[in-house]
Amino acid sequence: MVPKKENTPYFGEVSDYLPGISIDCVVVGFDLQQLNILLLKMKDGGHWGLPGGFVHKDEDMDRAASRILEERTGIKLPYLKQFHTFGDTQRRANSPNFFSESSLPEQFRDMLTWLQNRFISTGYLSLVDMRNSAPSPDYLSESCQWIPVDSIPELMYDHNQIVHKALEQIRNQINYLPIGISLLPEKFTMKEYQFLYEEILQKKLDRANFQKKMLKLGFLDRHEKQLSGGAHKAPFLYAFNRDKYEELVEKGIGYLS
Amino acid sequence: MVPKKENTPYFGEVSDYLPGISIDCVVVGFDLQQLNILLLKMKDGGHWGLPGGFVHKDEDMDRAASRILEERTGIKLPYLKQFHTFGDTQRRANSPNFFSESSLPEQFRDMLTWLQNRFISTGYLSLVDMRNSAPSPDYLSESCQWIPVDSIPELMYDHNQIVHKALEQIRNQINYLPIGISLLPEKFTMKEYQFLYEEILQKKLDRANFQKKMLKLGFLDRHEKQLSGGAHKAPFLYAFNRDKYEELVEKGIGYLS
Repeated sequence: MVPKKENTPYFGEVSDYLPGISIDCVVVGFDLQQLNILLLKMKDGGHWGLPGGFVHKDEDMDRAASRILEERTGIKLPYLKQFHTFGDTQRRANSPNFFSESSLPEQFRDMLTWLQNRFISTGYLSLVDMRNSAPSPDYLSESCQWIPVDSIPELMYDHNQIVHKALEQIRNQINYLPIGISLLPEKFTMKEYQFLYEEILQKKLDRANFQKKMLKLGFLDRHEKQLSGGAHKAPFLYAFNRDKYEELVEKGIGYLS
Repeated sequence: MVPKKENTPYFGEVSDYLPGISIDCVVVGFDLQQLNILLLKMKDGGHWGLPGGFVHKDEDMDRAASRILEERTGIKLPYLKQFHTFGDTQRRANSPNFFSESSLPEQFRDMLTWLQNRFISTGYLSLVDMRNSAPSPDYLSESCQWIPVDSIPELMYDHNQIVHKALEQIRNQINYLPIGISLLPEKFTMKEYQFLYEEILQKKLDRANFQKKMLKLGFLDRHEKQLSGGAHKAPFLYAFNRDKYEELVEKGIGYLS
């Protein structure tokens, strides 16, 4: 690993990193209203982008993804899952220089030249409970924020495309994997669970049918209603049964099974 | 693109390629008996491995995958799909030198040094009808063969792991995508179709249930029985309805839908 130098952030030297390979992290959060993506706004230039970085020469890529996310956003995630590698020649073509020289420590200025090279980037994805995360910007950024997916600005390089691909991946996965354990609070209503699915699939689902199918899968425990004392009926609360959930993640929700 | 030089194969110079990135192709075929993987056996050393290669500096990765497969096996596939990028530091550790200097053209010998570097490899996957393919070994290889998945020898580097991951990917996909259009002949029996699924999933499926579910998905056209004249009843033959198949690939086979 690269030792930290005094008064500088974590960069080290260009020669500490694999050439031509980068990592971009798409962290998706849900606030019971909409899906959000964790984005950084660069200092000076003010461009928005995904938390990304480079791989140390002696570091596994999966480990690099977690390190990069933590260094750039303060968020520690044990598990980021690779979802696609972006390797088009034009993926960073016609991009302005997003890094201003003044914002960089001296030994990192070599990186401005290094960054002119072609990079292939591997995208990593994670779904998190937004309310348990406190993102903070890194040395290069002026802010680090959750941005709703329908308000994502123009991002640097091909990062809009990377986000698009990540969301597409989640939509595909929903067809064979249970989803939500990491996006929802411990207890939630069926309406909130359905709303998450509708946000991901970008379409309305039938309430009765959704509930029936979800309960049939057997990974939701229903909790007794709270005594509300009010005129309105309190809805049931559900929680994931971790063992059954993991079992289903393992074997998938097959239409054949 | 790199121009071919006289008396040498396609390599060009080390400096024509992106450093540290390789591509490995997992081509899966089905012969109505079992799944097979297309493998190359190197000259001299005699090690088996996946058809792989490197990315030209001015070439999109997806294009590189098709070029590499064609150069190394003679098989032209319009569409190879990326499935995973292998980025562990140890993925080529403790591997012997698989390329003998004598088997390489002079300008490629620099590559022996170049190959000592760490490489991250992106795996590409394709499912093909074996009977329509005529693989042939390239300059570096003494043979190019379909090997049944249960007879795959020890492969170079982490190629066994790459094959494993590709098969796992197919097993996952089978839960939300129709599969088989590129693996089966134009017309096939339900038994052959079920056998393909059983080979992929590595488990027996219930005949009646399989037929019912497949027919319900609506992408199979049933053809009239041939007059056989024999004592045995000829089975129905089925063919994929391309339009409906593509539609299902587009939207997925969801348990919610």
